[in-house]
Amino acid sequence: MKFQAVKGTRDFYPEDMAVRNWIFERWHRVARRSGFVEVDGPIFEYLDLYRVKSGEGIVSELFHFEDRGGRALAIRPEMTPTLARMVAARAPSLTRPIKWYSVPRLCRAERPQRGRLREFFQWNVDIIGEKGPLADAECIYVAVDFFRECGLKPEHVVVKINSRAVMADVLRHAGFAPEQFDALYAALDRRERVPAEVFEESLGALGATRAQKEIVLALGTQNGPAGLQKVTALLTGDDAAQVHLAQVGECFALLDKLGVGEYCRFDTGVVRGLAYYTGLVFEGYGMGGLQRAICGGGRYDQLISTVGGPPLPAVGFATSDVVIQDLLVEFGLLPEFQDKVDLFVIDAAPEQFERVLSLVDILRRANYSAVFAYRRQPLGRQLKAAAARGARRVVIVDPLTAPGEQVILKDMESGRQAVVTVDSLMADPFATI
Amino acid sequence: MKFQAVKGTRDFYPEDMAVRNWIFERWHRVARRSGFVEVDGPIFEYLDLYRVKSGEGIVSELFHFEDRGGRALAIRPEMTPTLARMVAARAPSLTRPIKWYSVPRLCRAERPQRGRLREFFQWNVDIIGEKGPLADAECIYVAVDFFRECGLKPEHVVVKINSRAVMADVLRHAGFAPEQFDALYAALDRRERVPAEVFEESLGALGATRAQKEIVLALGTQNGPAGLQKVTALLTGDDAAQVHLAQVGECFALLDKLGVGEYCRFDTGVVRGLAYYTGLVFEGYGMGGLQRAICGGGRYDQLISTVGGPPLPAVGFATSDVVIQDLLVEFGLLPEFQDKVDLFVIDAAPEQFERVLSLVDILRRANYSAVFAYRRQPLGRQLKAAAARGARRVVIVDPLTAPGEQVILKDMESGRQAVVTVDSLMADPFATI
Repeated sequence: MKFQAVKGTRDFYPEDMAVRNWIFERWHRVARRSGFVEVDGPIFEYLDLYRVKSGEGIVSELFHFEDRGGRALAIRPEMTPTLARMVAARAPSLTRPIKWYSVPRLCRAERPQRGRLREFFQWNVDIIGEKGPLADAECIYVAVDFFRECGLKPEHVVVKINSRAVMADVLRHAGFAPEQFDALYAALDRRERVPAEVFEESLGALGATRAQKEIVLALGTQNGPAGLQKVTALLTGDDAAQVHLAQVGECFALLDKLGVGEYCRFDTGVVRGLAYYTGLVFEGYGMGGLQRAICGGGRYDQLISTVGGPPLPAVGFATSDVVIQDLLVEFGLLPEFQDKVDLFVIDAAPEQFERVLSLVDILRRANYSAVFAYRRQPLGRQLKAAAARGARRVVIVDPLTAPGEQVILKDMESGRQAVVTVDSLMADPFATI
Repeated sequence: MKFQAVKGTRDFYPEDMAVRNWIFERWHRVARRSGFVEVDGPIFEYLDLYRVKSGEGIVSELFHFEDRGGRALAIRPEMTPTLARMVAARAPSLTRPIKWYSVPRLCRAERPQRGRLREFFQWNVDIIGEKGPLADAECIYVAVDFFRECGLKPEHVVVKINSRAVMADVLRHAGFAPEQFDALYAALDRRERVPAEVFEESLGALGATRAQKEIVLALGTQNGPAGLQKVTALLTGDDAAQVHLAQVGECFALLDKLGVGEYCRFDTGVVRGLAYYTGLVFEGYGMGGLQRAICGGGRYDQLISTVGGPPLPAVGFATSDVVIQDLLVEFGLLPEFQDKVDLFVIDAAPEQFERVLSLVDILRRANYSAVFAYRRQPLGRQLKAAAARGARRVVIVDPLTAPGEQVILKDMESGRQAVVTVDSLMADPFATI
């Protein structure tokens, strides 16, 4: 009986795992150097946790099942509900600000199609317990620090920044009722992905008058500092709005001081689809042929209390291994991966094999990767096996050429070789020969 | 609404994640230095994959569900079926021997109880395409190399080794029919966990005669080299059995040469519960108060062809993070984890904050972890925050004491401080002061 991986999932053969690990290593490194600590939760939660955060509609997007006790469980489709639950459970004892990151495996019951996987990994970075623009700026900084670490430059990726608070001020100014906001955010979020007339129609369908439509359409997208000025002018005299605008301005000033301003741009086209954002929202956007969001986040000051915790401000973002890999491939930034071992240890004759095994043990204990041929073969065939395995250097146990406590050390790239003592081999197996 | 983690799962707060990462790092390090490369598969597979390997009985032990297309899927309860599927799919193109390892997340629909988690991690190490005792010995070596790496000595953990092939020879010699073997293996596997009379009764229930019982009971457990001699004597004249016994002997000789012989012991009490083992079987066993298996594996030469691949010999083992943590706690071998950052950067007065941010960026780009206070506070309070955050050193931007391109560098352990240039800070922030 022949089996395949379930559609929409991936097998990670060594070469795929190397790519995944390359990305993951940079996620860990960048989060840690900004002082974030790693957390994780279970891969499944009570189904209700997702219902509470996202409503009944989420259920069809989840892989859900019952345990023996009949409890409804679901594989996590995102990390934030778990994070909020974990913070809520221990809120009093956690030192603020809580700076957490995670690299969760997630599943969604998508209809499998190109670019829509049913299983993927995310990088989540969150700051909880801090409400100022400094926390917003630090989250965006971490995203950009990762881009820089991968060699991505401002021509490859831009971080579009907006504020839900400012957008609410604009919508209020235009005379929309607060209960219309969520639907308007959803329409605005789709704006760049649909033709202009479709977007305009969707505003009409939401009951927008001609004057209201004009205000919303005038907001524009991809508008940078001029956009921020335009909104500021529009909201002249609205003191609360000016406070929100000043916060956005401060965030940009902080990003400049943190050295990542050149990646960042104000953009009224970004509102993010999720209902739970309350303040700043942002989105990394891949340029070139990609032209799509590659990470997203923002401020969600209500969520911790929604899952039973105290009111705690929070800001965070997520990105996935799938979009990051697409982005790196698009710009040719993924290195070629070749699986190497440090040393391949060879017996010149089978009676030397015992020494091969003890050398291998010594080398491994010193944390060098060391392998040997499983079958006793002539020297030439073992050398070929060493080359095939990607060995950097070969150690040959051959008492005729290297008697006593000596071995032959051969560099596979230069082809040079030398007789060395075992002591000097252990001191530095990559010493010049 | 307050939520909890599902029973039998774990939340990994920073201190829990530190333990998990400590164990995982050693799994990766040890596998890699023996030349194993990492792979992974999806967290769910077609339910049939597990049915084919383990029979219909497995279904109740799995979390299973249907996708939108009505296909029956299950969260993986073990990695081996996925591994076998992946090898089978690409068998012709994979370079032999295939030396793979993985650190899969796994779930089992256990009734939650102490020590029985519904979600856990495993370390799987497998050699595919090699049938000799050298591959068996290398797998056991890797397990022991991990024990050594954690500081576990032969008084903490012993690897019990036996052979299904030899056990089959003994059972055949005793006159049992091959169709009785699987049930007998299961009974033998439980032998040490039940009273002697219960074990004897279970043999009777399987139709063993008095003479047959005597042969099986005489096998004993925890018997070392004397046990191997006893079995060899019992099977004198059985040429096939002597070949199997010689293979076991060779495996022990190889383990000695690889430097891990002192951890290993022949033990006819070990047969492993799983039906698919075909040759050598082994089990790491935790001593002290633990007295339980902490890893297990063996040769499974039929599995790859069972899932549609070519006939390929294979040997491997697995252990889980849960038992390893128990073992390390039992012997006090887990270090204390304290989350540290390299540097905490402080402004002596708020007008220096801009320089704090730019220093933080420079330090992070050089891959030092660097943080700062989110609120502008007096120097003393920032120093306290730095101590609370576990900062190794503090950088103070204070133009009065350290004018121009200088800063104050303070060591938090010794309390010593010095005025240094930013250049020398960047050259080595941990230089002696």
